[in-house]
Amino acid sequence: MPPADNPFLRACRGQLAPRPPVWFMRQAGRYLPEYRAIREKHGFLEMATSPELACEVTLQPVRRFGVDAAILFADILLPLAPMGAPFHFAEGEGPVIERPIRERADVERLRVISGEELSYVGRTLELVLRELPAETALIGFAGAPFTLASYLVEGGHSKSFERTKRLMWEEPATWDLLMQKLSESCVAYLKMQVAHGAQAVQLFDSWVGCLAPSDYERSVLPHTRRIFEALEGSVPTLHFGVDTATLLPLMARAGGDVVGVDWRTPLGEARRLLGPKRPLQGNLDPVALLAGPEVALREARRVLEEGRGGPHVFNVGHGLLPPTPPDDVARVVDLVRSSA
Amino acid sequence: MPPADNPFLRACRGQLAPRPPVWFMRQAGRYLPEYRAIREKHGFLEMATSPELACEVTLQPVRRFGVDAAILFADILLPLAPMGAPFHFAEGEGPVIERPIRERADVERLRVISGEELSYVGRTLELVLRELPAETALIGFAGAPFTLASYLVEGGHSKSFERTKRLMWEEPATWDLLMQKLSESCVAYLKMQVAHGAQAVQLFDSWVGCLAPSDYERSVLPHTRRIFEALEGSVPTLHFGVDTATLLPLMARAGGDVVGVDWRTPLGEARRLLGPKRPLQGNLDPVALLAGPEVALREARRVLEEGRGGPHVFNVGHGLLPPTPPDDVARVVDLVRSSA
Repeated sequence: MPPADNPFLRACRGQLAPRPPVWFMRQAGRYLPEYRAIREKHGFLEMATSPELACEVTLQPVRRFGVDAAILFADILLPLAPMGAPFHFAEGEGPVIERPIRERADVERLRVISGEELSYVGRTLELVLRELPAETALIGFAGAPFTLASYLVEGGHSKSFERTKRLMWEEPATWDLLMQKLSESCVAYLKMQVAHGAQAVQLFDSWVGCLAPSDYERSVLPHTRRIFEALEGSVPTLHFGVDTATLLPLMARAGGDVVGVDWRTPLGEARRLLGPKRPLQGNLDPVALLAGPEVALREARRVLEEGRGGPHVFNVGHGLLPPTPPDDVARVVDLVRSSA
Repeated sequence: MPPADNPFLRACRGQLAPRPPVWFMRQAGRYLPEYRAIREKHGFLEMATSPELACEVTLQPVRRFGVDAAILFADILLPLAPMGAPFHFAEGEGPVIERPIRERADVERLRVISGEELSYVGRTLELVLRELPAETALIGFAGAPFTLASYLVEGGHSKSFERTKRLMWEEPATWDLLMQKLSESCVAYLKMQVAHGAQAVQLFDSWVGCLAPSDYERSVLPHTRRIFEALEGSVPTLHFGVDTATLLPLMARAGGDVVGVDWRTPLGEARRLLGPKRPLQGNLDPVALLAGPEVALREARRVLEEGRGGPHVFNVGHGLLPPTPPDDVARVVDLVRSSA
């Protein structure tokens, strides 16, 4: 079957279907015993950078659940190392940027990548594609410039994004240079992924919801828009962030064929904001999948119901959590598949 | 001057004025050297429970900035100890509930307080009132049931509120009993504060923004509404949470003469949602106060501008952060005062 006939890709293109396609952010992850079995023997970054290992964990949720899309197993931070900002994962602490950005010279030193520095990601995609059923889409992804900038500037995870916002407000020219280098790298990275078989790409602007709309519009939108413009005419694109209730219209303006929505914004409300034709992705609260099959199915039914009336990709509103029981994920997949 | 003539209280009652009153959440705190001088010699809970110390730090920002309201120095968790859930603050970790709620019996054991168990808070308010200029309002406060429940169930701060949501979804009767005991205790505590001189009270539902609107409506709104109903005809009330863009209409329905808004929701958008007559409080990004006087004043001017067109209490959209330079807070107060 040609890729265009894949149910996930059809939904991304705005076609209505009897039931929405379904996949889950972080569907390849620690909640799966078959993932943990590999993780026990290999480091996280080793897994993300070894095509064979990354291919295997990418395929695990497809085999187990029959989801409508596989998403590349990788980390949004991978492009930072070839850009000149190495990082590692500290036990229980998350990512640590070894030399956070502190001044303009640090930004000037960053390199724009060509994408080929991450050729192992391309190789992973090729391996996955070889094994993936034709009715299952293969999604590539990248971290959006704001979210990557926040890691570079804070040095890791952040609660209030103090340094990031300060750079954005106090040194707008340095900020723009940083966002420009990240955007260009992001375009190159995503184009490489498409060249190696990604049939859609999702831009994760996970932390952009810490901004007021006026800041997003001034300091983020122009950069993010350039990424989506550069990908026009290529594969379908998805644009996702958390806590974005008041940013959704601006994120939609920045681009993305599909707009991802977290559980705080009912899909009906998102449709009211973005129009009934814009495909939406989301938005089951991932915690609902920890609350037993009855709650998980009830909440999933509500999302299905709220998703009607326009093109919809069923997903969680943020990534699956490590204590998620795989059997309840399977139940939700069955519910969505049988909702036609 | 009678309390009704106080500019803060007039705004709470929906009266328009040439300039908004101004105060700051967490205006009594670590960013002030005079606070740190006391904190060096006393524990945080010792300060919150000693009327003389609590009075002194409550008054510090009034003396320094001439803000239009003082807010009681206390902690939202204080009522939990007499309810039967003792807690302490662990260095660098935040609050630790000594025996988190794990089952229905734990909820059944909780006591509803009369308010008098916290008579030291009443004494603090009396001491403050004695020294407070008549044109400065005195605000009391309490943690809202959802936010307090989240601490009781998680055992401290939480990122994804897994246990809280699970209890809410999996055991709705136990959840309702917990919320009911917290609401009744909250009413008693706030009425005690009013009896001892609080001229307005703010309900902090700081973490309720982790919920979808449907969950808020079903599991939080009925309880929170009962608190505001019990306070009707008493003093003006304020209702605040973070990340509440999609909850604002429901929070307004639950009650509060004034609805607090974080920086993610422009005040104009909040007015569109709640009507032009509902007084709003907010919503300067507290990080803007770390970014130098130019940025702080520019962002404050934007908030002033967006606040026009209805009653407005100028505030931050969440508490002041420890690295805030007091001089920039003073600059913003002067800006607001001269905006008439």
